Amino acid sequence: MVSSKAGSSAQVADRPSQLLEIASRLFALHGYAGTSLRDIAQKAKITKAALYYHFPNKEALYQQIVVDNLQALIDRVSAALQPAGTATEKVRIFMLTSADIYSESPHAWMAGSNAFWSSMGPEIRAAAIGRRDIYEKLLRNCIAEGIASGEFRKVDPAIAGRLLLSAMNQLTRWHSPKGLLTAHEVMEQYLDIVLAGMRADSSGKR
Amino acid sequence: MVSSKAGSSAQVADRPSQLLEIASRLFALHGYAGTSLRDIAQKAKITKAALYYHFPNKEALYQQIVVDNLQALIDRVSAALQPAGTATEKVRIFMLTSADIYSESPHAWMAGSNAFWSSMGPEIRAAAIGRRDIYEKLLRNCIAEGIASGEFRKVDPAIAGRLLLSAMNQLTRWHSPKGLLTAHEVMEQYLDIVLAGMRADSSGKR
Repeated sequence: MVSSKAGSSAQVADRPSQLLEIASRLFALHGYAGTSLRDIAQKAKITKAALYYHFPNKEALYQQIVVDNLQALIDRVSAALQPAGTATEKVRIFMLTSADIYSESPHAWMAGSNAFWSSMGPEIRAAAIGRRDIYEKLLRNCIAEGIASGEFRKVDPAIAGRLLLSAMNQLTRWHSPKGLLTAHEVMEQYLDIVLAGMRADSSGKR
Repeated sequence: MVSSKAGSSAQVADRPSQLLEIASRLFALHGYAGTSLRDIAQKAKITKAALYYHFPNKEALYQQIVVDNLQALIDRVSAALQPAGTATEKVRIFMLTSADIYSESPHAWMAGSNAFWSSMGPEIRAAAIGRRDIYEKLLRNCIAEGIASGEFRKVDPAIAGRLLLSAMNQLTRWHSPKGLLTAHEVMEQYLDIVLAGMRADSSGKR
């Protein structure tokens, strides 16, 4: 974590990636409102001026974190998907990996899923929404694949994907890490219902 | 709408129920932050002092609206449920009525579902949470009924209910009244998948 900048042992974290890591942890611990640029600079052992050099304000810093988290989500889910066989397995892996990532850092997830509500500059906003679209499209593609292969019946992949991601995003609203079920276990039960309802041998007719 | 108070034609709405109606509309149109007590008093044609008499601050007014909206939701869903026959029909009616109520006033729904996040006094909070619990329990009971009757397989009614209500609550995040599908139509598609996945002849095994 020690900066390679010569001469100043006080500057332990003046690179953007390190600052993002420190800020992310503080936002997760104390929330957006409860974290000041001063707190972040102090924790990073740099001056506020040095922090300003990289991030003009708290909002810009926060939004960069959102974009980074979304990219990490895409990367991890994509990597987990590769070995999967059937579309059912792919949907399962996509959702369970997402639940695990959420469990590791519920606050980061919350920041990501709330970000689209908060006002943000057009560039960061486009970067965040672009990544969220890629993430959602990954899931829709898995569902569409299952429909094409005859594994799933003809549901709308966008609607089925929304159903699963809605359940995922609402976890932040009610799930407690101290609760009876882990997010992974809750997701297993959601998948049990939704995948059974999408299978070719199920029927959407009442 | 004219107050029965003698003598003052300027006072057109000084009863709490009328004030709540006016405030609710303003909050829906301009959001919480965009609505001041002054706006509400002006629209109600009463003095700010008269408004303060009923509601000490904007927060108290807003929270009363949340409680009222939740009660109206319970009343309407309960009334719609009565004629229903099977558990499948009851779950459908519960969710489709909820989707219709959401469509009528997305902002009021949003206020209700966000309320549990905002800080509020313990009494109003208990009133709001108590009503939300009644609402959620109504749905869980319909699901449990279907399991008892053999209509549904043995899913966890709490988890299945969460799945449907998560999908419902997330509508506020992405659904546009100008979009291709109404909230009712989206809910029909969610129900198509979830009910098929809960039916006794479906299977949760992979």
